[in-house]
Amino acid sequence: MKELKETNKYTDPKDLKSFGKIVEWQEDMGNKFFDWYSGVTEGDTALTEREKALIALAVSHAIQCSYCIDAYTTNSLQAGADEEQMMEAVHVAAAVKAGTTLIYARQMQRQVEKVLM
Amino acid sequence: MKELKETNKYTDPKDLKSFGKIVEWQEDMGNKFFDWYSGVTEGDTALTEREKALIALAVSHAIQCSYCIDAYTTNSLQAGADEEQMMEAVHVAAAVKAGTTLIYARQMQRQVEKVLM
Amino acid sequence: MKELKETNKYTDPKDLKSFGKIVEWQEDMGNKFFDWYSGVTEGDTALTEREKALIALAVSHAIQCSYCIDAYTTNSLQAGADEEQMMEAVHVAAAVKAGTTLIYARQMQRQVEKVLM
Amino acid sequence: MKELKETNKYTDPKDLKSFGKIVEWQEDMGNKFFDWYSGVTEGDTALTEREKALIALAVSHAIQCSYCIDAYTTNSLQAGADEEQMMEAVHVAAAVKAGTTLIYARQMQRQVEKVLM
Amino acid sequence: MKELKETNKYTDPKDLKSFGKIVEWQEDMGNKFFDWYSGVTEGDTALTEREKALIALAVSHAIQCSYCIDAYTTNSLQAGADEEQMMEAVHVAAAVKAGTTLIYARQMQRQVEKVLM
Amino acid sequence: MKELKETNKYTDPKDLKSFGKIVEWQEDMGNKFFDWYSGVTEGDTALTEREKALIALAVSHAIQCSYCIDAYTTNSLQAGADEEQMMEAVHVAAAVKAGTTLIYARQMQRQVEKVLM
Repeated sequence: MKELKETNKYTDPKDLKSFGKIVEWQEDMGNKFFDWYSGVTEGDTALTEREKALIALAVSHAIQCSYCIDAYTTNSLQAGADEEQMMEAVHVAAAVKAGTTLIYARQMQRQVEKVLM
Repeated sequence: MKELKETNKYTDPKDLKSFGKIVEWQEDMGNKFFDWYSGVTEGDTALTEREKALIALAVSHAIQCSYCIDAYTTNSLQAGADEEQMMEAVHVAAAVKAGTTLIYARQMQRQVEKVLM
Repeated sequence: MKELKETNKYTDPKDLKSFGKIVEWQEDMGNKFFDWYSGVTEGDTALTEREKALIALAVSHAIQCSYCIDAYTTNSLQAGADEEQMMEAVHVAAAVKAGTTLIYARQMQRQVEKVLM
Repeated sequence: MKELKETNKYTDPKDLKSFGKIVEWQEDMGNKFFDWYSGVTEGDTALTEREKALIALAVSHAIQCSYCIDAYTTNSLQAGADEEQMMEAVHVAAAVKAGTTLIYARQMQRQVEKVLM
Repeated sequence: MKELKETNKYTDPKDLKSFGKIVEWQEDMGNKFFDWYSGVTEGDTALTEREKALIALAVSHAIQCSYCIDAYTTNSLQAGADEEQMMEAVHVAAAVKAGTTLIYARQMQRQVEKVLM
Repeated sequence: MKELKETNKYTDPKDLKSFGKIVEWQEDMGNKFFDWYSGVTEGDTALTEREKALIALAVSHAIQCSYCIDAYTTNSLQAGADEEQMMEAVHVAAAVKAGTTLIYARQMQRQVEKVLM
């Protein structure tokens, strides 16, 4: 019964823990991907791990990825970000998305001027 | 010289006028697409053509499609929408995009509570 | 037991009702966001509330936001839209998304001509 | 002649400088949007202006918004970020987008198991 | 009790089986859509059904559509694709998404040069 | 004069040729990215290079990336795909995007039933 329910679930939080299993079907590509992915997100580089976790958290919200929100919420906390900072990161993501939509209204405005001229 | 410059352009406003040329490479799929596309966007149906043009204008901004902003700005004007209404349609698109980003912060908040518990 | 299951859910319909809680972590940004968001979506302005609900419903489908589909389905109904109109709004969103994808095939066609020349 | 060419351009870098003109068509919504937008992106809050500029830069790349890349590249530099840090922010955005795509392969794998069972 | 839980679910795998029901609310648009949709995805055309299923599977991952991943995982298997090929299709989708994000860093680099000049 | 114009261009087709320059600002991440990216897209693996080029072409259209359309149009041609096949790949991408938008209308329909009950 429990099993049946599971098979009916699309996004399963447990997938996050078993992300590494994608390597089982294509080893070379999978290993190279994780090599890059870990190299980018883990540890302090020119940006601190905390900064990178907050950036990843913002992007995760921008692209509506529940798996990534799960992962980078935890990472942000562990790397020392607090709740207000995390919420601000999401506001930045939202503001950029809304700003992008509205800056294109300048194209609309120029187009209206062209049509009405 | 002029021609050289043209070939270096990615999104060319002239593509809009020649959209029908996609049918030349795949006739059956192209015709069926345009049959649906015209059936949806043209004329008064349950929604008026003006309402549909405004919806299309908003979606065009939401997905940052310059071609579509070009097309549906003209359509909205021709169907009787005015400038304030068109700008409001874009604000609705922007508000939904920002709202989507921020509602996912509720998942983040629930996750933080789970981690800190 | 019930509680455990809840914590394993990514998108929880109850988040919609508690959307306001994002303000608790960042008050100033949250209040300003909701000030704009409400100003855009609520009440009759140059567009009617019904028109804005239908636009929001279409954008919600275009960006695959289940929370927003939930919210704006209810809003559209309450503002007087009927089922056929709501479905047409979704078709407009789908047509614009498909149209955007296919208009870029004009760039592909121009590129093929350039390569084969 | 120069003018004619301009009118044929979809995304015009000059739109960025004249972003404020969207208020001319809908004053109340425009003002409220900019009130939120500035409140989020400007100045040090819980996050520093530099951190917010880097987050915005990453999100701008994630959603392919040339206008925003223009704006937040300048902002990031002015707020003290260097070139390596900015490039890392873009890598984080790219890694999250690729990671999102690949984590969904876990759903595919579970589905294959279900079908083959 | 079971019913109550269902109504609280946003994306329900059963929607896939009942996709045809969208026609009930708008018959003409719905029929035209499915006419195009089936014409594109079903059977061997210039591309084989297997090739089209793999392309659809990759796009489904690129746009994070769980419904489509469900549908095209099954289709890919039935059309003869194996697990390694399917995983590679997802890697291609992920690589294009990451590549798109990173190629825009060239605009950032040109912008930095312009600002620092 | 020519130079001035160039600096005013957002997406510059020349960026494609100089994509490798992103490594100059962050060497380790850049090299690892290209290692994965080349490993995925180049040569015959479980999928042929032609199949992968067509998948990449479809995804490029789905996410409206002009740079990638440029690159993978050329790759598809060089790997032996013809014009009809390439156009079909774009139709598949468009059909999946439209289908995704419309399948969410099932959630809307279920929500309407819930509200009207």
